[in-house]
Amino acid sequence: MEPQLNAEIAKTAAEHGGPIETDAVIVGAGPVGLFQVFELGLLEIKAHIIDSLAYPGGQCIELYPDKPIYDIPAVPVCTGKELTDNLMKQIEPFGATFHLGQEVTTVQKQDDGRFYVETSKGTSFLTKTIFIAGGVGSFQPRTLKVEGVDKYEGSQVHYRVRNPEQFAGKNILVIGGGDSALDWALNFCGGNADGNPHKAESVILLHRRDGFRAAPASVAKMHELCEQHEMQFLVGQVSDIVETDGQLTGVKVTGADGVTRVVPADQVLVFFGLSPKLGPIAEWGLALERKQIVVDTEKFQTSIPGIFAVGDVNTYPGKKKLILSGFHECALAAFGAAPYVFPEKRVHLQYTTTSPKLHKVLGVDSPVFD
Amino acid sequence: MEPQLNAEIAKTAAEHGGPIETDAVIVGAGPVGLFQVFELGLLEIKAHIIDSLAYPGGQCIELYPDKPIYDIPAVPVCTGKELTDNLMKQIEPFGATFHLGQEVTTVQKQDDGRFYVETSKGTSFLTKTIFIAGGVGSFQPRTLKVEGVDKYEGSQVHYRVRNPEQFAGKNILVIGGGDSALDWALNFCGGNADGNPHKAESVILLHRRDGFRAAPASVAKMHELCEQHEMQFLVGQVSDIVETDGQLTGVKVTGADGVTRVVPADQVLVFFGLSPKLGPIAEWGLALERKQIVVDTEKFQTSIPGIFAVGDVNTYPGKKKLILSGFHECALAAFGAAPYVFPEKRVHLQYTTTSPKLHKVLGVDSPVFD
Repeated sequence: MEPQLNAEIAKTAAEHGGPIETDAVIVGAGPVGLFQVFELGLLEIKAHIIDSLAYPGGQCIELYPDKPIYDIPAVPVCTGKELTDNLMKQIEPFGATFHLGQEVTTVQKQDDGRFYVETSKGTSFLTKTIFIAGGVGSFQPRTLKVEGVDKYEGSQVHYRVRNPEQFAGKNILVIGGGDSALDWALNFCGGNADGNPHKAESVILLHRRDGFRAAPASVAKMHELCEQHEMQFLVGQVSDIVETDGQLTGVKVTGADGVTRVVPADQVLVFFGLSPKLGPIAEWGLALERKQIVVDTEKFQTSIPGIFAVGDVNTYPGKKKLILSGFHECALAAFGAAPYVFPEKRVHLQYTTTSPKLHKVLGVDSPVFD
Repeated sequence: MEPQLNAEIAKTAAEHGGPIETDAVIVGAGPVGLFQVFELGLLEIKAHIIDSLAYPGGQCIELYPDKPIYDIPAVPVCTGKELTDNLMKQIEPFGATFHLGQEVTTVQKQDDGRFYVETSKGTSFLTKTIFIAGGVGSFQPRTLKVEGVDKYEGSQVHYRVRNPEQFAGKNILVIGGGDSALDWALNFCGGNADGNPHKAESVILLHRRDGFRAAPASVAKMHELCEQHEMQFLVGQVSDIVETDGQLTGVKVTGADGVTRVVPADQVLVFFGLSPKLGPIAEWGLALERKQIVVDTEKFQTSIPGIFAVGDVNTYPGKKKLILSGFHECALAAFGAAPYVFPEKRVHLQYTTTSPKLHKVLGVDSPVFD
């Protein structure tokens, strides 16, 4: 049966070589999304996996790659990075295709029962099932909440540094008290290396208090550079921006003393950390409860048949946001999805320890059993 | 409040030094029972754990200690032994007390809301909560189904070998075709070592067919010993026993040719494998469905408040008998149990990665966080 695409969708898909036809699309490549590949793989369901980050691992990699996790069953201790690496190794036999650095922008049910899915990079899919493993959402930098600042985003106000070269020779204001703020401030004032190619004309670090979340060594280095008049540190909060001829020329800073002063700047770098957002998933028409997707506990299916939600993104009575719960949800969701993929087959539970069929899909030798 | 024990229970408990008062008793020390210790430990609930086997690990150790398991999340491959070892390491900080080689024989609700629990070894408990992690049940040897055989169990008919010495110099009949049958047959006919202290007067191996589940090397050795007239192999099935003066003197065996012959024997060793049985748990008054304990999916609580069931022993819509599902059930059951243990405390979910409190109970250093 031909997919029923509306004209606009058909046009977009055609421009990108037509949609990828698949059995399953997983939205989110955190630990639970990765394990969903495994559980689908055991049932011989191939998956495509999409994530807004440029690498798999989700919040485990984004928020705590090096911090120890103690509650993964049978793993007394591991880091977020090790957890991700082990899951990547575990799903290797199933050859899932990763589509990274892109968000899902469109989900549309087709007349043939499948879903048309499109991402921010224009990748499109026609899939029988969708697994939302979106975790707490996609990570977005927290922004500076001052009127009029939005229109300078990307030109003079930045929440990420993509091209450090563009700040060479400029008067830079860095705002924040974490590692990103300190590291970039030190970097731009030439404090990291001799002959720094990114050396700014001047560097001011602004933080709301004289206390830092950044590494103590970085804070010490910053104070040293301030004493050498290589950079300047101010305590205060931005209350307004200063504009001249349609350009940002500085910000108004209210200090701890209550006095507001103008701090001149060509470029403003803001590092307030990352904040997760559910994002466009909120608009797919799924039943939600306090921004969580409501699922049943039999199949972890959402209010739309064929769309499942696993891990921190879902809610049900008793729900705890634990990785080990997400793993269980993946297993039951895979069985829940099987009838959409194989409508005429009865799918039975088999065990990886004893099933020659599972040994084949896992690519391991099947020992001779009693 | 004093426990309200009836007279008989109080007498038994007193004979054994009085019941152990505790917050939680876990019935079953398989992987899920072990992980229940961990999840309770994170909530600072101390547990006692009971198992009919003499060692922890349950069916992972009893049935497949060396066979690889591939579906433990983030563990690409491990054996049942490794899984058990890792879980034992993971629960070490929580100092659970193990009561092995004994089955629960009595569970009785007390007037103060607690449960009186007693085992086959006379160990007794007064506990606020019970977690049944009984798996597929306790492993019992499959028995010889012939009339009148029961009364010789332990004297002349055996399903386990506890003291090999008792068979020295006897006429032995070994029945079965697996490793246990072959290994013991070879052992008793002196085929394993020179100067075997357990050498029998004669050894006959009986199996229903001329094909074996045992290791090929053992089968070859058996055939070699038969050729040397060191032992004898018969194909057939036991149809009756032969008794003389209240002693078992042999069995009647019906061969493949349909002819029934008497095979004389002083001692009969039967190795038909192990079969799991739910056992006395079936009589606790819990709601059952096809011999599984019915639980909710919010707390994995049974029909008796304060008694929870986790792992292969329970059932609910969508249930799959997967170890990873048991792990999830442990986590939610622990939270479900907390109000029975700490009626006045609200228990919140904390993360092992970031909670200094959990670091303390885990006995690990709490790093300095932002």
